[in-house]
Amino acid sequence: MRIGIVGAGQLARMMAEAGGPLGLEFLFLDPAADACAGALGQLHVGPWDDPAGLELLGSCDRVTSDFENVPAAVLASLAERVRVSPPPDAFAFAQDRLVEKRLLEQLGIAIAPLAAVSSRPELLAAVDQIGYPCVLKTRRLGYDGKGQVVLRGKEDLEPAWQALGGQELILEGWIDFKHECALTAVRCASGEIRFYPLSRTLHDQGVLRLAASMLAPPAGLQSQAETAVRRLLEHLDYVGCLSLEFFATEHGLVANEYAPRPHNSAHWTIEGAVCSQFENHLRAVCGLPLGSTEPRGHSLMFNWLGTMPSRAAFLAVPGLYWHDYHKAPRAGRKLGHATLNAASAPALLQALDAVRPLLDASTSNLLEKMKLSA
Amino acid sequence: MRIGIVGAGQLARMMAEAGGPLGLEFLFLDPAADACAGALGQLHVGPWDDPAGLELLGSCDRVTSDFENVPAAVLASLAERVRVSPPPDAFAFAQDRLVEKRLLEQLGIAIAPLAAVSSRPELLAAVDQIGYPCVLKTRRLGYDGKGQVVLRGKEDLEPAWQALGGQELILEGWIDFKHECALTAVRCASGEIRFYPLSRTLHDQGVLRLAASMLAPPAGLQSQAETAVRRLLEHLDYVGCLSLEFFATEHGLVANEYAPRPHNSAHWTIEGAVCSQFENHLRAVCGLPLGSTEPRGHSLMFNWLGTMPSRAAFLAVPGLYWHDYHKAPRAGRKLGHATLNAASAPALLQALDAVRPLLDASTSNLLEKMKLSA
Repeated sequence: MRIGIVGAGQLARMMAEAGGPLGLEFLFLDPAADACAGALGQLHVGPWDDPAGLELLGSCDRVTSDFENVPAAVLASLAERVRVSPPPDAFAFAQDRLVEKRLLEQLGIAIAPLAAVSSRPELLAAVDQIGYPCVLKTRRLGYDGKGQVVLRGKEDLEPAWQALGGQELILEGWIDFKHECALTAVRCASGEIRFYPLSRTLHDQGVLRLAASMLAPPAGLQSQAETAVRRLLEHLDYVGCLSLEFFATEHGLVANEYAPRPHNSAHWTIEGAVCSQFENHLRAVCGLPLGSTEPRGHSLMFNWLGTMPSRAAFLAVPGLYWHDYHKAPRAGRKLGHATLNAASAPALLQALDAVRPLLDASTSNLLEKMKLSA
Repeated sequence: MRIGIVGAGQLARMMAEAGGPLGLEFLFLDPAADACAGALGQLHVGPWDDPAGLELLGSCDRVTSDFENVPAAVLASLAERVRVSPPPDAFAFAQDRLVEKRLLEQLGIAIAPLAAVSSRPELLAAVDQIGYPCVLKTRRLGYDGKGQVVLRGKEDLEPAWQALGGQELILEGWIDFKHECALTAVRCASGEIRFYPLSRTLHDQGVLRLAASMLAPPAGLQSQAETAVRRLLEHLDYVGCLSLEFFATEHGLVANEYAPRPHNSAHWTIEGAVCSQFENHLRAVCGLPLGSTEPRGHSLMFNWLGTMPSRAAFLAVPGLYWHDYHKAPRAGRKLGHATLNAASAPALLQALDAVRPLLDASTSNLLEKMKLSA
């Protein structure tokens, strides 16, 4: 079975790593000739709407994507020729923050206070309504903290408008969260849904840096998240993996945004769950039975941004798994990750003692912020 | 770091699957244009002594092999240009059964009674000395039961000589074993050695069909096997993974043969150990720290020969991992394997109940022979 993937970044690469043993072969379409998944299949280089690329994808047995900003229209046109999962609508909604938030709201999922902003007067009115602090965001093409500005007071208004004005925006109320988390689930065409344990996540400047499997989340958190994700998956008639990001507040979970694909917050499932998010995504896309989402021990994942640390010292830590995406270094770029896995939470914390001295100052600080305890 | 592998079969493929995440890239030399590892790196097609192929391998950072019958002289000549692990001598010894057995004997490792046979009179003398039943084997190019004939009585003498005579042979006494097992270990250049738990193995017509991790082997078995393998690794100044196969008898272990590479009996380590034999082989070859050989739960591996079973039904079993080698079907050919993993021995036996109805009659019979119990 040949799987076409629109996008050939690290998510496509990890899909191919998971799918090869299942007997799957891969064709990728990506604008970048050095896209890192290319080494694990056939890479067609071209824009998202490249006719020859779409012809090749159309000849595959199934098509999926590793990037949420592939134009939904491209996926919809592919869907006329080949089974495309997740459904193109799931991309269309996620590509417009206003549409996405209204959908979550309509499904009864708690979100931050929100207003659409397309002019300076609308911005002023929205700030009056929502109050400081708040966040001005572009409606389109935002990810990893791109296209957002925090407004802490009146003095931030004009710079924010200068930075983002002139395009469709939303203003959101600031959520005073205890921590962030994300739930990844997989749904197959027959409607069966399986949920991974919640991931505790930690972002820095909008970019995910750390994620931990939460095997004993505070009472009700897992079920609250599952209820929200189930509604979303069923509404979208979704097939594949999806992650929904949340702020955990004193009053429960507030949803932020979803990703219609495997997600950085669940990379730990490669070693930390019976069946990884990448394999489960492909199983759903191919119509194979879903794999178990049960955890295997406790896991903590570190993202490597900008430069890869030297692997040798890390590999000396038992239960540490290395993931080099084979990407050229560039400031802020996600180049790889490492997952530390141990049989129990105390064992994980003990193993972490061996990792701590190897971390740079920035990662160390973020790790302390996470306040992990057994 | 670029790793050259002499041979591009399924062992090379699984090395590349393990090595990609470590940041390694691969170049393969193989006589077959459709060699199954080729999709995961650069494949140079040519005979083992192909000058252009050896030139390419010589330009790699490290060289290893996935096939024990690569001419040792080829590896030795490569070793003048690039670090080759395991050492070429480990191949040279393993390529001649008589030399291999004499080495084991010299190291104080128990083996079957043995005689060299190069003529009909020598065969008669050897049978007189060793008695029936016994096994006549070619000294060279034997694997997976190829090049062996069992002699149960006088009437088998002439057919055996007709089948194998005219080349250098050995005659071995038949070992009355309770079961077969194999120990896989990894040694790095500094001399550190790590051992996996013994694998229980089951062969049919000389070909491995089933292997199970033995987490609680009968008292003394693990340490007896470790002593033997340690002597062998140290004598060879070995770097990489090696497996030594044993017959378990009432009087302890009797060694059969070793493989200077990752081995079919330890494929279960991919999901059933903290660090797999493939990753540990590469870590040793690259001079990286060795990974933990601790088990993760209990595992049982099934080899798929000749044709791949339909994967869908198997994938419905939680904890079952599929490995399709992307090889063309051919009678008796190893095309893939599946590993069933569970947290405990009783859980493994329970999961096995879901697998049993999916097995063909031959595999079912072999499984019963294995008499697994919790």
